[in-house]
Amino acid sequence: MRYVMVQIPNPPAPASPAPTRSVPTSADVARLAGVSRATVSYVLNNAGAVRISEPTRRRVREAARELGYVPHAAARSLRAGHSRMVLMPAPAFPVGPLYSQFISDLQSALGRLDYTVVQYGTVGLHDDEAARAWAELRPVAVLVPGSGLGPRGVEVLKRSGARAVVTLGPESVEGAHALLLDHDVVGHSAGAHLFDRGRRRIGVVVPREPGLEAFSAPRLAGVRAALRGTGATVTELPLAHDEGAAARLAARWRDLGLDAVFTYNDEYAMLLMRALEDEGVRIPEEVAVVGADNLMLGRLLRPRLSTVHLELPSGRELAGLVDRAVRDPAAAPEARKVLGATVVRRESS
Amino acid sequence: MRYVMVQIPNPPAPASPAPTRSVPTSADVARLAGVSRATVSYVLNNAGAVRISEPTRRRVREAARELGYVPHAAARSLRAGHSRMVLMPAPAFPVGPLYSQFISDLQSALGRLDYTVVQYGTVGLHDDEAARAWAELRPVAVLVPGSGLGPRGVEVLKRSGARAVVTLGPESVEGAHALLLDHDVVGHSAGAHLFDRGRRRIGVVVPREPGLEAFSAPRLAGVRAALRGTGATVTELPLAHDEGAAARLAARWRDLGLDAVFTYNDEYAMLLMRALEDEGVRIPEEVAVVGADNLMLGRLLRPRLSTVHLELPSGRELAGLVDRAVRDPAAAPEARKVLGATVVRRESS
Repeated sequence: MRYVMVQIPNPPAPASPAPTRSVPTSADVARLAGVSRATVSYVLNNAGAVRISEPTRRRVREAARELGYVPHAAARSLRAGHSRMVLMPAPAFPVGPLYSQFISDLQSALGRLDYTVVQYGTVGLHDDEAARAWAELRPVAVLVPGSGLGPRGVEVLKRSGARAVVTLGPESVEGAHALLLDHDVVGHSAGAHLFDRGRRRIGVVVPREPGLEAFSAPRLAGVRAALRGTGATVTELPLAHDEGAAARLAARWRDLGLDAVFTYNDEYAMLLMRALEDEGVRIPEEVAVVGADNLMLGRLLRPRLSTVHLELPSGRELAGLVDRAVRDPAAAPEARKVLGATVVRRESS
Repeated sequence: MRYVMVQIPNPPAPASPAPTRSVPTSADVARLAGVSRATVSYVLNNAGAVRISEPTRRRVREAARELGYVPHAAARSLRAGHSRMVLMPAPAFPVGPLYSQFISDLQSALGRLDYTVVQYGTVGLHDDEAARAWAELRPVAVLVPGSGLGPRGVEVLKRSGARAVVTLGPESVEGAHALLLDHDVVGHSAGAHLFDRGRRRIGVVVPREPGLEAFSAPRLAGVRAALRGTGATVTELPLAHDEGAAARLAARWRDLGLDAVFTYNDEYAMLLMRALEDEGVRIPEEVAVVGADNLMLGRLLRPRLSTVHLELPSGRELAGLVDRAVRDPAAAPEARKVLGATVVRRESS
């Protein structure tokens, strides 16, 4: 952690080291250690430029420990004009294991750059309203997954002091840097693979779960783009993630006349494969199946599931990008495609 | 959201409505609306007790909108002495879908009680060190999942002004309220069920993944407790969540002489069932299998997986508990068991 040194107004000082239950202040620490409040700040905030003897440093640290004093992040940020807080609104869509891991890596990488990463769920708030709620925490940067932020929201955040607003999703938003997770490539890889395997009548599962359109629509578009001009057909298959819905789709499968299906992801693949198996539809003889996300799940299915492996940028790379944006708040917003995709072929296609 | 009205010192006022890029203040709003700063606070913080005419309220809101002004949570909390922030450190263990849903419900419920729920990952920090990092954000309450907080950490948080510290895990910590997720009951249910099904030589999968001991150890202990005095045996089966490890365990399965296995959860069940199937071990004829968590996954396996359904308290119930603890910070710490378990029997046992 790195601290910015601040001096904040204190409540009236108690006559002796703070009694249990009152919140100790830096003045209490200064009094107990017999040093000035500035010295306390220097020591506890590791201000390297200032020369303070090791015994004094030790005395301050011991006093802080004895009193249970910790610096106040909000006070620091009020004085500094900004915080080291990177706010990451919790995504509004159901998060799979791949994405969770990605977010966790990114948080660690930002932590190593001395940022405090805070996730803030704003359930039920949208657009400007959500941006205002985020702005109240006065983050130095906001990294927004998904597609819930508009240009007005970006403006609200910047006016409240955010030095960088970065979206992480399918589209750019005016005024914000964009890390484009362009899911077209996922569908494109799946479509091209199925075409290469000789399939010409291709179904595409589109989850009915709210919040997934931002991913499923470009994946579908990617399949269409891969097959454009080839004469192959694309059939949209809306599907909820439950057994009944999968059974109903499987029951009318043979009427659809499809010879392949891209299932949106591996979890929908498992659901649909089970239902097709229960109907006696043979995989891959009658229908080739391709999932996405490359979860272990797919290797445990029989036939083993072909899948699209998503290549996300490293947390370290993204953290560096956020950091550069914070250091140069006047820079023109940049958009950068950060998602790659490769097919892992197994037995199902 | 509910706001506490505060007056905070302002930087020198600009001569005209704030120019683009500077952060607008409540003084700017007051000037543009032609009212006092107190009126701005009353209006924007919805202080219901104060009578202000609707046209004035409208003028203030319009000025705030025009300037892009949002209240500053940190300033509010500095003046109020505490925030409405409930800090939930991100858990250090891999989180399954069941737990994710639980956390998300809890956050919504706290949000409805006007708390701002912030998740804060402190990767690599432990005990007191983590508690100090949390304390810097000056949360009004801290809800700690898992078992990473000790009595000293609780003290640090309370000294920094947290009115309630609540742990959500297998054990109580001195000074904190405890919502005991006692995983003994999960293992106990599984063990008793397998015994009822006539099984006497019972294996228990213990994940090798770090961070899961807090759950796996009590689940194992629960199985042992259920079988104590019955003459049935319990065999610990350490297992990593990868195919190679599962294949190695399955290869020596028949030497183990087990007739049942409790697999820790449904995901390990899928992994082990696949490996046993590849070895030609018949389920449930040769070995009965019980998972836990009652995921959809288990219904998609063949044979369909028996599982332990975990009964977590509702988010609303827990949120109410946190709120009561905040309102009565002097109350003696309470421990309360909040986890129930029932077996859902399917084809695998």
